[in-house]
Amino acid sequence: MNYSAVIYILGWILNFEGFFLLFPCIVAIIYREKTGVVFAGCMLLCLLLGAMAIHIGRKDKEFYAKEGLVTVSIGWIILSVFGALPFFLSGEIPFFEDALFETISGFTTTGASILSDVEALSKCSLFWRSFTHWVGGMGVLVFVLAVLPLAGGYNMHLMRAESPGPQVGKLVPKVRSTAMILYGIYVFLTALEVLLLLFGGMPLFDALTLSFGTAGTGGFSIKNDGLAGYTSYQQTIITVFMIICATNFNVYYFILMKKAKQILKLEEVMIFLGIILFSALFITWDIRHLFSNLREAGHHALFQVASILSTTGYSTTDFNVWPETAKTILILLMFTGGCASSTSGGIKVSRMVICMKMLRKELSTFTHPKSVKSVHMEGRAIGQEVQFSVAVFVMTFAMLFIISLFILTFNEFDFTTNFTAVATTLGNVGPGFAKVGPMDNFGKFSVLSKVVLMFNMLAGRLELFPILVLFYPKTWRK
Amino acid sequence: MNYSAVIYILGWILNFEGFFLLFPCIVAIIYREKTGVVFAGCMLLCLLLGAMAIHIGRKDKEFYAKEGLVTVSIGWIILSVFGALPFFLSGEIPFFEDALFETISGFTTTGASILSDVEALSKCSLFWRSFTHWVGGMGVLVFVLAVLPLAGGYNMHLMRAESPGPQVGKLVPKVRSTAMILYGIYVFLTALEVLLLLFGGMPLFDALTLSFGTAGTGGFSIKNDGLAGYTSYQQTIITVFMIICATNFNVYYFILMKKAKQILKLEEVMIFLGIILFSALFITWDIRHLFSNLREAGHHALFQVASILSTTGYSTTDFNVWPETAKTILILLMFTGGCASSTSGGIKVSRMVICMKMLRKELSTFTHPKSVKSVHMEGRAIGQEVQFSVAVFVMTFAMLFIISLFILTFNEFDFTTNFTAVATTLGNVGPGFAKVGPMDNFGKFSVLSKVVLMFNMLAGRLELFPILVLFYPKTWRK
Repeated sequence: MNYSAVIYILGWILNFEGFFLLFPCIVAIIYREKTGVVFAGCMLLCLLLGAMAIHIGRKDKEFYAKEGLVTVSIGWIILSVFGALPFFLSGEIPFFEDALFETISGFTTTGASILSDVEALSKCSLFWRSFTHWVGGMGVLVFVLAVLPLAGGYNMHLMRAESPGPQVGKLVPKVRSTAMILYGIYVFLTALEVLLLLFGGMPLFDALTLSFGTAGTGGFSIKNDGLAGYTSYQQTIITVFMIICATNFNVYYFILMKKAKQILKLEEVMIFLGIILFSALFITWDIRHLFSNLREAGHHALFQVASILSTTGYSTTDFNVWPETAKTILILLMFTGGCASSTSGGIKVSRMVICMKMLRKELSTFTHPKSVKSVHMEGRAIGQEVQFSVAVFVMTFAMLFIISLFILTFNEFDFTTNFTAVATTLGNVGPGFAKVGPMDNFGKFSVLSKVVLMFNMLAGRLELFPILVLFYPKTWRK
Repeated sequence: MNYSAVIYILGWILNFEGFFLLFPCIVAIIYREKTGVVFAGCMLLCLLLGAMAIHIGRKDKEFYAKEGLVTVSIGWIILSVFGALPFFLSGEIPFFEDALFETISGFTTTGASILSDVEALSKCSLFWRSFTHWVGGMGVLVFVLAVLPLAGGYNMHLMRAESPGPQVGKLVPKVRSTAMILYGIYVFLTALEVLLLLFGGMPLFDALTLSFGTAGTGGFSIKNDGLAGYTSYQQTIITVFMIICATNFNVYYFILMKKAKQILKLEEVMIFLGIILFSALFITWDIRHLFSNLREAGHHALFQVASILSTTGYSTTDFNVWPETAKTILILLMFTGGCASSTSGGIKVSRMVICMKMLRKELSTFTHPKSVKSVHMEGRAIGQEVQFSVAVFVMTFAMLFIISLFILTFNEFDFTTNFTAVATTLGNVGPGFAKVGPMDNFGKFSVLSKVVLMFNMLAGRLELFPILVLFYPKTWRK
């Protein structure tokens, strides 16, 4: 393990966090809030410690896959610990484990909250809370890569460890350029949403925070009743952007490059849209008796499907009281998640598709043992190693799920609460059902359970392996 | 598809079913029950149709994997349909779908019942119901193989399609001899259990039916309160035999061959026993306040762990009222199941172990991309194809699970009921939790849900693929 190189990058992560903390400070100045002092203090602390780490560490060439994984997972933990400090030090979230839960939930774009009264927070805290979604959505390491000129080893290994999806797609040959293009699209989409929301009469503060939550597929809302109080137009804009941000960002690159025809070849995107359509129609029919007309039922069904499948987690209504079929569809969507190379969490549609194709191949091998078949997706053959990785990913997801579910039972909550609490954190969705429903919160869990759920959120966001290698003894051997 | 060879084997299956139906007829004579006439009629029908099919079909050499899979799955469906006839025609189970559910539950060794009052059945029906467990436990095709002299193609492909576990182990080079040895061990173990139960003062009828249910890891009981009414000694004997019958039968072959030392090398068996020990201890601690002393809590905990993990499904107490942790452990054990090459269902411990080792390999590849590692189990390397198969099996299990769960929600029962109903049928366990708990039954489900659960039981028993190939279009192409 090349510790000095790891420390060097961690220093930069802290520096960037210091820079990000500048924004809530500005918000505090605008709203004349005293909490701003705490944010300013934390900002200086991050900058100071960051500069020290950069000075101690060394930017040398020996940076391999192992270092990449360790840097990413420790980086995210450090990011969360320092991000939680303002909440705790200002006293707005009295217990550190709760502040950390909230911050991890923010950076990992989960959006599960321990707060029963969100509106009691100061504006600058609310802003920082939503801003963590935006930073975590595209990935903080991707940001580092886009800004810092680093050698090839750093680039590829950091990018691979943080990016979602079964295969790491580089849009252009250079990792740094890819990171810049992705961030460019991200900024553009966020700005567009803010503008459209402002156009619909939403206050600037709400438009900004909700757009951060949408773009990062996070889901923290700034009102106690979620998004129920906003107009139908505003909810629709957010529905559209939740879908946009959970779609493979390659789509937008193709549009940028004027190769729109290529989009139709993106199997994952087509299936993703198909799932949305099918689920929304089914749920509309199932909940039609709860609303005054079919159009309204459709509106809420589509919003909720987009919110859960994109792993955002906003809610316009208490879907905890919906019929069992509608609820079960939403639970299943929690696992699916959005597309690879988007800001969404979950297992990802592409992995699901590859699994289905592996099954078809296996059936073919069963009936015709001598036939040789390969698995294709989007016109390319999927190699044995990728198939193996996808399979191990799904199984590891299941294993983490089981262990977490087991530990959560110590709270003596019902099975549905435990099951959906684990699903919603591992999938970075946000709300679950029963005692962790959209109108409820995660504050009721024991500290042990909260630690497990925090671990799940990080594991889910980093796609399991970077976090798991921390517990793999060989990682730390020479 | 070589239809005539398939019909030939199906004829033999019907013939054997006719032979098996002789036993409830004898029971009817002893207890002077009129229902015996119905059983005798069904027996003759099976023998007649069986003889016809053997006459029409042809025992020719072209018998490949495809034919093997199709024969096994259609064979099991035919077996169940004809096995259900006596229940339906005698009027003891008034609806045919319920009679079929009960019979499929019997043959697949699930033990999930639609009956609210088991004790209302005639003795011969009760006997047949438990006897289906015994026939299904070792596999009816294995029986066919042990008795009929068939060519090599038949042997290997039928055996492979029906036997549980990721790899088909032949004990001796010849499939027929392997089948005979397995049946021999099976008969011996059943007889031993009957004797030990008789020794404990159990009536012969109870000893026989319960031993059939234990040996086949089925779980139909003949009393409305399950096994609660039996003595502690009798319950302990059943506990021990549930564990024995869910253990890889290779163990007994090794004992027979005086190679007992080899048993310690059977990783799967050791882990299986470890799971039992750990789960039982944990549950004992969790339920200690429900019983008068720790010994009693331990007794019921061990019984229930052995019952669920072996996928038998007997109960000595209403574990539906146990604390959430104990219940969740039991739910997880439903998925695990027993060892390969045993009569138990579920995913099987060996598949779980292979999954864990694949994860370790993946972590190693992640941290040291250039290292070449293979997966070993019980001293042998596990080939890429087997790993692929195991992964696809687990994923297919999950997919079937999801689809079934979705369809079951139409009943508007709670999530726990739906979830455990699917788990318990796919894993061939028997009882679930909430509305399908050990003191409850499956009669409340809609016909559609019952069809799904029946499909699950068959898919679970035959380890998914033989049933799925029926729906794979290429199977039916020339």
